[in-house]
Amino acid sequence: MRWRMVSSGISSFLLLLVPLTKATNSWTIDHFGFFKNGTFKQRYLVADQHWHKSGGPILFYTGNEGDITWFCNNTGFMWDVAEQLGAMLVFAEHRYYGESLPFGAESFRDAERLNFLSSEQALADYAALVGALKKSRPGAEGSPVIAVGGSYGGMLAAWFRMKYPHVVVGALAASAPIWQFPGMVPCGVFYQIVTEVFSKGGAHCSANVRRSWIAVDRLASTDEGLRWLAAEFGLCSPLSRGDGLKSWLQETWGNLAMVNYPYGADFLQPLPAWPVQEACKHLGFGAGVTDQQLLSGVAEAAKLYYNYTGQAECLDISQTATGQLGTRGWFYQACTEMVMPMCTDGVQDMFEPEEWDFQAFSDECFHEFGVRPRPDWAETAYGGRDIKSHSNIVFSNGGMDPWTGGGVTSSLSDSLVAIVIPEGAHHLDLRYNSEYDPQNVLIARAREVKYFRKWIEEASTSPFILISD
Amino acid sequence: MRWRMVSSGISSFLLLLVPLTKATNSWTIDHFGFFKNGTFKQRYLVADQHWHKSGGPILFYTGNEGDITWFCNNTGFMWDVAEQLGAMLVFAEHRYYGESLPFGAESFRDAERLNFLSSEQALADYAALVGALKKSRPGAEGSPVIAVGGSYGGMLAAWFRMKYPHVVVGALAASAPIWQFPGMVPCGVFYQIVTEVFSKGGAHCSANVRRSWIAVDRLASTDEGLRWLAAEFGLCSPLSRGDGLKSWLQETWGNLAMVNYPYGADFLQPLPAWPVQEACKHLGFGAGVTDQQLLSGVAEAAKLYYNYTGQAECLDISQTATGQLGTRGWFYQACTEMVMPMCTDGVQDMFEPEEWDFQAFSDECFHEFGVRPRPDWAETAYGGRDIKSHSNIVFSNGGMDPWTGGGVTSSLSDSLVAIVIPEGAHHLDLRYNSEYDPQNVLIARAREVKYFRKWIEEASTSPFILISD
Repeated sequence: MRWRMVSSGISSFLLLLVPLTKATNSWTIDHFGFFKNGTFKQRYLVADQHWHKSGGPILFYTGNEGDITWFCNNTGFMWDVAEQLGAMLVFAEHRYYGESLPFGAESFRDAERLNFLSSEQALADYAALVGALKKSRPGAEGSPVIAVGGSYGGMLAAWFRMKYPHVVVGALAASAPIWQFPGMVPCGVFYQIVTEVFSKGGAHCSANVRRSWIAVDRLASTDEGLRWLAAEFGLCSPLSRGDGLKSWLQETWGNLAMVNYPYGADFLQPLPAWPVQEACKHLGFGAGVTDQQLLSGVAEAAKLYYNYTGQAECLDISQTATGQLGTRGWFYQACTEMVMPMCTDGVQDMFEPEEWDFQAFSDECFHEFGVRPRPDWAETAYGGRDIKSHSNIVFSNGGMDPWTGGGVTSSLSDSLVAIVIPEGAHHLDLRYNSEYDPQNVLIARAREVKYFRKWIEEASTSPFILISD
Repeated sequence: MRWRMVSSGISSFLLLLVPLTKATNSWTIDHFGFFKNGTFKQRYLVADQHWHKSGGPILFYTGNEGDITWFCNNTGFMWDVAEQLGAMLVFAEHRYYGESLPFGAESFRDAERLNFLSSEQALADYAALVGALKKSRPGAEGSPVIAVGGSYGGMLAAWFRMKYPHVVVGALAASAPIWQFPGMVPCGVFYQIVTEVFSKGGAHCSANVRRSWIAVDRLASTDEGLRWLAAEFGLCSPLSRGDGLKSWLQETWGNLAMVNYPYGADFLQPLPAWPVQEACKHLGFGAGVTDQQLLSGVAEAAKLYYNYTGQAECLDISQTATGQLGTRGWFYQACTEMVMPMCTDGVQDMFEPEEWDFQAFSDECFHEFGVRPRPDWAETAYGGRDIKSHSNIVFSNGGMDPWTGGGVTSSLSDSLVAIVIPEGAHHLDLRYNSEYDPQNVLIARAREVKYFRKWIEEASTSPFILISD
């Protein structure tokens, strides 16, 4: 796969015993054109039991590529800090995901209906939503709003502050790979970090993954081998060739590294603490094992990821991401604006070499949707590496998160601040506090709250002149 | 008319004896959607004879609602400063104006084709053009770019810096009424300033305009009176009622105030120096004149505006603006995003009271184009009064320009600077230096150049890190 989902996911979610209002607002489907004047309902969730009415801040989650309740339940950090900040929490669903479908079930039917799925349209929805909230909730008109997001949501939070600084006073962009676009970072960084994480995960771990590809090739060269592979991996369908299995495994290792959290968590799949280390226990062979022995270990590692609870009947290699993520929507976004090159070289990473082939990707997109990606647009629109004119954005990244390769890991100014959490995977800081948290993530969260307070205070001291008819 | 053209215009232009390259680039018609993947040719003009190759700055005129050669010829300031700054001049034509028509002659046929006429699309064109210039012109990749514009072009220059600060290091927004939107300034300011200008233009001048409306009504109440009016004003067509004449006169006084320059100039119409004062010479009556005497004076003032050279055969009250401005395009823009409320009360101004009636305006737009305006969008998109997070914009305004009521006339920060030219009309500072210029406009231009130098210097000292595959 030449594109991958940015966000991690969750298949089931906790029921929160807090008052949470579900609401919808109607927005124009096309903020940038007037010919199509239809509207759609955007869903959002609000929790205001800790909110200091009359000006208390609003933490606004800029929803990513999936159902908003899922992000709501997984962004425990916002719930943890709501009381100390006296903040209202708002979780806004991204159009074309969850229940916010501009054309209902037909939204993904063709490029004409998908045409309004873009980051710019989503940000305009969020700007309109903040405006509506400030008008409709007594006391909110003076509330400073801070954008919060993780992964693609973190990119949106950062871009929200860049494009609409009059709507949000600052942004926390957690694990936001805003530089994972053509020409900004080397395309190989993602899988290099995955490799490092597996190297640290256990003795010989990355070396065995490195050896596994040729082993699959050899077994996949015979019908008997293919049958063996399907049985060993417990696949739902027979295998006719090795490619699909290899791609699936590559994606799996990437996802596993993303969710390598210090405690058991219920994500793409239920996982134990430090799941990479657990998986690597099955990949500790020295040299001299047979292909079958090696791949048995690989299968155990994969099953740990997909079937830790033992409840899955079989593994489906056509799917790697959670059902909560909008895969078709994200595929379209990757095929239009969110062109995030990936590549491997088999030297700096443990994978088979594969160059970033834009033409092939473009053809795939055209075949799928009838549209072609514009690889330079994200840089033109959002600034690429040159974002220093902006202010009040905290970029947090986990040292073990593969997406960190495309993130901002050095501060660019006093108010464009980078926080790196060495033991962190994908936006660990956005999760609830846990007794298993490394010290560094607690420090990171405290720093983030400090910046929130700073922005809130700056907002309260600057005059706001309102003149109206 | 509930909407008016922002820019002043010119019916003929000077031929410049300087090397000027005309070029076009092709851009996607829809920067924000992928379903329609057509492209169109955008025209732009380049003058680089003073440019310090290898990093010299680029002054980029963000074209407004008209043919670009016209703005090119009228923005003498840029030509005056090109040599001292070692700057390349670029004048970029706004889509749907001049020769930059996405659908050729069919561009205005219906709302479907007009759909891509917006400030956001235009700014995206400009961003793409800067990127293309930097790639195609050797030595330009490190050139700092400064946006310059007047009137709607000034609004675009300011918004260009706000939305694309990585593309332009700063902007000069001359006579840019970025606050002439609902809820930002009182809707009556425009015509209040017109009234002040006429009050200062001569004894009893504004008072006589104030009295003229009822005089028109009285004469228009009889057939004989209508014939008299048509003859006195030298109209091309007979009059059937008084409304059209009154609207036309109201627009005329507004335009006259806009172009009240200290020297003879060739604008909407060729005019003498201080044309308001000249017009007011015909409006100096004390009390006690008849309707005909009063309106004879009004007619002389109108003829001064429309027929100073005496070459026009008759006056056409269906048209007030120059042919160089794209009236249909701007009508569409006013009917969609550029909702700039105007009103009069007959007390603070010399006109007949007319409230801002959004519903009527919206119906007019729907009748004309099949679209309805979104009055809140410009504020959501561009920030309204709250623009203090931005930087490096100089807002210049003329104290006698009616559009100044919607402009930024007090500095908002160290780098959001307001310059007011007391005797200035509509972007006087963008014109060529003239021996008749008041001192204040010379001072204003010097300050503007100083800010240019500052932004250029800051750009050269900040590191720019390029990492690519």
